Amino acid sequence: MAVDGTDENNLEKGIYTKDASRLRKTFGRSLSDLSTSQKCGAWASHFQRLFVSFIGADWIFLMILGFIMAVISFVMDVFVDNFTEAHRWIYDLADSHVLLQYLAWVAYSMFLMCFAAGFANIVSIQAAGSGIPEMKTCLRGVMLQEYLTFKTLVSKVISLICVLGSELPVGKEGPFVHIGSMCAALLCKFMSLFSGIYKNEARNKEMMTVGCAVGIGCCFASPIGGALFSLEVTSMFFVARNYWRGFLSATFGAFIFRLMPVWNRQEDTLMALYATKYRLDFPFDLQELPVFAVMGIVCGFGGAFFVYLYGKITLFVKKQKATNSFLMKNCFLYSALVSVLISTLTFPLGFGQFMAGQLTQRESLISFFDHRTWSNHGIVADFDNDDHLAAWKHPQANVFVILSIFVIMKFWMSAISITLPIPCGSFVPIFVIGAAFGRLVGEGLATLFPDGFNMDGHVYHITPGVYAVVGAAALTAGVTHTISTGVIMMELTGQINYALPILISVILSNMISQSLQPSIYDKVIRIKKLPYLPMLSWGHRDKYNIHVGDFMKREVRYITLNSTYRDIFKILRSGNLKTLPLVKSTESMLLLGSVERAQLLVLLKQRSQHLRKENAPTMPISYKVHFQTSTEESASTFADSASTEPLKSALKKPSVGLYDSGLSLKKFFCSRPDIAAMEDNPDAEDDTILQEIEEWEEQQLDEQVNFNNCKIDPAPFQLVERTSLHKTHTIFSLLGLDHAYVTSIGRLIGVVSLRELRKAIEGSMTVKGVKVRPPLASFRDSGTSGTSSESEATELHKLWDRHSGLSIPREQQPNASDSDDKSQ
Amino acid sequence: MAVDGTDENNLEKGIYTKDASRLRKTFGRSLSDLSTSQKCGAWASHFQRLFVSFIGADWIFLMILGFIMAVISFVMDVFVDNFTEAHRWIYDLADSHVLLQYLAWVAYSMFLMCFAAGFANIVSIQAAGSGIPEMKTCLRGVMLQEYLTFKTLVSKVISLICVLGSELPVGKEGPFVHIGSMCAALLCKFMSLFSGIYKNEARNKEMMTVGCAVGIGCCFASPIGGALFSLEVTSMFFVARNYWRGFLSATFGAFIFRLMPVWNRQEDTLMALYATKYRLDFPFDLQELPVFAVMGIVCGFGGAFFVYLYGKITLFVKKQKATNSFLMKNCFLYSALVSVLISTLTFPLGFGQFMAGQLTQRESLISFFDHRTWSNHGIVADFDNDDHLAAWKHPQANVFVILSIFVIMKFWMSAISITLPIPCGSFVPIFVIGAAFGRLVGEGLATLFPDGFNMDGHVYHITPGVYAVVGAAALTAGVTHTISTGVIMMELTGQINYALPILISVILSNMISQSLQPSIYDKVIRIKKLPYLPMLSWGHRDKYNIHVGDFMKREVRYITLNSTYRDIFKILRSGNLKTLPLVKSTESMLLLGSVERAQLLVLLKQRSQHLRKENAPTMPISYKVHFQTSTEESASTFADSASTEPLKSALKKPSVGLYDSGLSLKKFFCSRPDIAAMEDNPDAEDDTILQEIEEWEEQQLDEQVNFNNCKIDPAPFQLVERTSLHKTHTIFSLLGLDHAYVTSIGRLIGVVSLRELRKAIEGSMTVKGVKVRPPLASFRDSGTSGTSSESEATELHKLWDRHSGLSIPREQQPNASDSDDKSQ
Repeated sequence: MAVDGTDENNLEKGIYTKDASRLRKTFGRSLSDLSTSQKCGAWASHFQRLFVSFIGADWIFLMILGFIMAVISFVMDVFVDNFTEAHRWIYDLADSHVLLQYLAWVAYSMFLMCFAAGFANIVSIQAAGSGIPEMKTCLRGVMLQEYLTFKTLVSKVISLICVLGSELPVGKEGPFVHIGSMCAALLCKFMSLFSGIYKNEARNKEMMTVGCAVGIGCCFASPIGGALFSLEVTSMFFVARNYWRGFLSATFGAFIFRLMPVWNRQEDTLMALYATKYRLDFPFDLQELPVFAVMGIVCGFGGAFFVYLYGKITLFVKKQKATNSFLMKNCFLYSALVSVLISTLTFPLGFGQFMAGQLTQRESLISFFDHRTWSNHGIVADFDNDDHLAAWKHPQANVFVILSIFVIMKFWMSAISITLPIPCGSFVPIFVIGAAFGRLVGEGLATLFPDGFNMDGHVYHITPGVYAVVGAAALTAGVTHTISTGVIMMELTGQINYALPILISVILSNMISQSLQPSIYDKVIRIKKLPYLPMLSWGHRDKYNIHVGDFMKREVRYITLNSTYRDIFKILRSGNLKTLPLVKSTESMLLLGSVERAQLLVLLKQRSQHLRKENAPTMPISYKVHFQTSTEESASTFADSASTEPLKSALKKPSVGLYDSGLSLKKFFCSRPDIAAMEDNPDAEDDTILQEIEEWEEQQLDEQVNFNNCKIDPAPFQLVERTSLHKTHTIFSLLGLDHAYVTSIGRLIGVVSLRELRKAIEGSMTVKGVKVRPPLASFRDSGTSGTSSESEATELHKLWDRHSGLSIPREQQPNASDSDDKSQ
Repeated sequence: MAVDGTDENNLEKGIYTKDASRLRKTFGRSLSDLSTSQKCGAWASHFQRLFVSFIGADWIFLMILGFIMAVISFVMDVFVDNFTEAHRWIYDLADSHVLLQYLAWVAYSMFLMCFAAGFANIVSIQAAGSGIPEMKTCLRGVMLQEYLTFKTLVSKVISLICVLGSELPVGKEGPFVHIGSMCAALLCKFMSLFSGIYKNEARNKEMMTVGCAVGIGCCFASPIGGALFSLEVTSMFFVARNYWRGFLSATFGAFIFRLMPVWNRQEDTLMALYATKYRLDFPFDLQELPVFAVMGIVCGFGGAFFVYLYGKITLFVKKQKATNSFLMKNCFLYSALVSVLISTLTFPLGFGQFMAGQLTQRESLISFFDHRTWSNHGIVADFDNDDHLAAWKHPQANVFVILSIFVIMKFWMSAISITLPIPCGSFVPIFVIGAAFGRLVGEGLATLFPDGFNMDGHVYHITPGVYAVVGAAALTAGVTHTISTGVIMMELTGQINYALPILISVILSNMISQSLQPSIYDKVIRIKKLPYLPMLSWGHRDKYNIHVGDFMKREVRYITLNSTYRDIFKILRSGNLKTLPLVKSTESMLLLGSVERAQLLVLLKQRSQHLRKENAPTMPISYKVHFQTSTEESASTFADSASTEPLKSALKKPSVGLYDSGLSLKKFFCSRPDIAAMEDNPDAEDDTILQEIEEWEEQQLDEQVNFNNCKIDPAPFQLVERTSLHKTHTIFSLLGLDHAYVTSIGRLIGVVSLRELRKAIEGSMTVKGVKVRPPLASFRDSGTSGTSSESEATELHKLWDRHSGLSIPREQQPNASDSDDKSQ
């Protein structure tokens, strides 16, 4: 790497390059006077600067991200294809006996499922599930632990391949959102080695949103739909900037993803994933529109029912887990059971013959989207050269029965499958069910109106495939509560002529399902009790007539200008706050700013170093002896325990803070590993020396902290007591805050964190319990809240009473650090 | 209307219905005991409640909006078609002589143009121009005056029809964004008669964003592209809620818009506006991708050059206007001149034969997007049954020459046309130029590779129409700096197979043009100096190392708890602030909250009424006499001048405040029209009485204000001095603030409004002048700013010095109302 060429590596790259460029500007004219070696150095640093700014450019990052995701998606598809082919091969091999075939069919799936469940559980359990609810929470500001590590990435990718290979009715779209975010987060971490801009947390979070878009873009080769879907699903508010990034990265990702099959000689050119061949001259008749609308409504009900069913199953499984330890606590057994049940039912020679059991999800979709009409009065025509369509032909049952069975069976199978502790998405299975339902309606109409709709003499036959497309979009929209599924559908089928029918049914489906159930992702958030901030809406504004003063936490931990090192130490040990407010004094409580935890740790460290270097003469002699014997050790220990790198990581993972890592007051402050060794050692020297040392330490700890070199944020976010819940919610959501201080005429009187806010919102809706309001719910908001402006205003006497109460000098509060608030 | 049935009409509808429903719940059981008439009343109010909540539902509003816009768009198209047909008819009628034909051709256009310019100038000059820059500003929070009135709507619609009818190379998409917003705003105003929810300003602003989406959706029948385009163009940050609304409304609008031609028997079914028939089986070859990429790059340069050219022309015209009063100040003359120039050049028998002058923009587009290859080695083939294609056939010049002339001529013509004082969009003309350029490239390639690209034995010919599609999308993207043009393109042509080429060229075009010029809309904002907040970016964060304390306005007008009515009166007269801060006293400056201007006016009114009613005995006798003689007059005057309705409107239009409307202290406060009459009347009674009255008045004015019944916002938005510019910008942008108070330990020390913020941002970039940063500009941000976190933090001693300085009781400031700050 070019950056290794100079000595300034340890400097912050950004500062370095800025200084270098300033230098170069100033001395540019005298550059020719420099000696050759100096010239070389100048050029090296010039190239380094170029390299850093190249690496720091957004588009480079976005293209790399897109490329990585495309490769992952493509490789995954290849593996899954091979797995399913192997499944068919084993199945065909065992055609001597039905039982043998059954065993081959079931055991293969079960083995893969067990492996997937085991791998996910052993390597990283965070890989289980869809990942979208968790990403929603992360992007909202609450970083869930271990959700974005390399271990989880490996666990998720490998388990997902096995799960998809086992032909369980689950999809890869949810996990891909998670994988995309993980790639983005890891890539940011990697790139931060080269460019300082990747140390900007807010920017990295935006990149994670892009990761979601790329994930979907590469999953379905639908860049536009992917970018939109990620926005809809993950954000409540978003920055227009991200929109571009999502598009660029998803486009490049989808491009590479579709390019690879061409390079691989599998395909001729870049095409849609499920390219269709519907007619262009007369896409649909006006008289078909009501049917599409009705389908949208039915799919809305269906989607809501799916979410309801999923919730019931999850709660049932949870209950079982709590009571029956053997069956449920063993992830293998539960997964294996479900796998056996599902593959038994889909066994092509058994019940599977009534539901086209031998088709994979992809093959089913291709057959549903086919532009030909399958049947004539329920009897599937012969398409000799097409295996996929032949699967729907059954001598005893007509196509309507088979499609109905398919829809019903897949419905509950999918709902069960996505409760398993494996990586699994609900998008694709729902998609397949919706397409089957649409095909059922389409075939029915084609039977009812064999001559199509007569239009000025031309006869246009009904295309049942179009109904499959609309049904798939509508049902998925009903489950996920998104409109972009319609766009994904268009990109997936490569036809936009049906934009209006698709959009109409998608919107209707959304309207119905949103008024009945939360989206599947919000359902998971509620069931898993993830720390996600629910949505408020205009219409229900008057319901939340409480103010910050009513729900803020009044016991704030704070540091004052007079704090001693001991105070700081106590505060740091007693909680895991990211930042601490700094007030003038305990009496006045005037808020001066906030200090990051890391800064305080640095303060302590500096103090410790300073003591050892400067104050050595005043140390007790015995201590000095100990100190000198252990200089090297302590130095190395210190470098490990208190250098900035681990501090940063400690900061990022609040729960692995100072307290948990077991550092004691003395150990950390004076970094004397010798004492710890002595305490463990029964042959220690006399106790008097130890006592002497401890007394000296205590003395040092009681000194006042010198904040002179401490970075202080002078403008932490402040609210006042009378700020309404609605305003607070808006500010928190828009600015992505995780806490804000509450002040009254400059005095710190409380703190509001996401937790308090969430509780307040939930508490103010006691009638219905927690209600996560989806965005489109405003559709059904009634107009009975025209008085919203009043709740924001108040009358003077209240305001004045409060203030006059506070004008009296405030009595000294007990040090807040003694109370047990762990997660402010 | 159902609402007229009861007496409670004057009540706030929201409150009323809420109370009614509570009543019904409480007494629901005894309802059967009521008499029949009471029952009827209950049912009537029940229906009224249903009606109000129905009217208040978002989806009703959105569908009505979509419907209105669809009708406007359709009717406009019909009119424009008739106008252009009439043009052709007159032109054909005059085929006896070339000169006559020329006159017919030119005069017709000139007449329509003059009418359009005149109408727009006379009825409402705000109708001129595209409207997108103005909507951007409005949606950002600064309501421009008269931009959303019914008069402007009428002016814009009628002028636009004439302009489009005159065949000037301008489009209707920009004006449609404006029309959509106007419709949304007016519809909100209308609906607020029935439902209180439409009084919520923030909600109405969201509806205006939806209006933009509907405008584009109905203009191009592209709901998805429209929703996205409106987001990209109008918002910096947006609420996910709006996304849904935009989709729903735009979909319904586009649906109705496309449905009307079917009802009208013009078309068979719902189709794309420029439906194409490109092949589906093999959309494009991989080897064509580099060509698309190069086209994207060229279009990026072209787009930037167009914006540059437009800027130069506008500045030139402005200069001319300042010097040459006759030619330029007369809107007719300038418009007429440009019209004559352009129609002379497009005269089909003159120079127009080299640029297909007889085709309208729509016809040109249809011919460009045609799936057939026009030419064989530059000679246009014969398409006998197709007028449009025949226009490109010229005996002397080959197709490349004609297309090149077309591109060059239309380029500068469009740039000039959109500077005229008429409603005009730049989207469609740019679209046409891009399509022509694409067709040129496509025809060139088809000539170079007549056999297409050989692919495994299959021969796939090149489709020049695809190049036209890509070129149109890329050039428009370059000018508007949007990605959604790609989506609009797909919806317009009804084919999504070319999604990847389109997206690639659009993104490349964006990257190039954004690094050279602002978008055409930002250019207009800069030229017109509209109050729009420029964008900051992460990469340039360290450039803005100034803080709120450096740019806030320190002379704040405020009211104190001890303010007299005179003080309030002075403050209200001296400026047009929407809200005023309320502090405890001039000495302490403790911020208690903020009071709306309207509230203060109400206070004054109440005081006046109170005085007249209660304090009558203490009035000087002479006053009482006057008072009694004029009771009726004054009451009626008061109702006119100080009732809440005009106050509200005064509040909405800050510049038409109290000061401008000419109310004097006495007139307003005591509402004594008699005194004014007396002063005008030379035969007035003796001066002593007047003097007595005035003294009494002065006395009354010096009383302290009673704030007891005044609504006070207890939590106005507060910043501290050390809040960085970047943070302030983010907060203002996200929350859509227009001002925030700056406090230091609870004391009000300044105020920051949008104006100060804008100045600060512009001032901190003195080197390059005002630079409106487009969103995608982050593409080229380099990574040299890893130190961003440092600018947010500060060292204690600075912070502390500041605070200790302020601890000293602050000396009394001169009353701020004397200084001349009009627009805080």
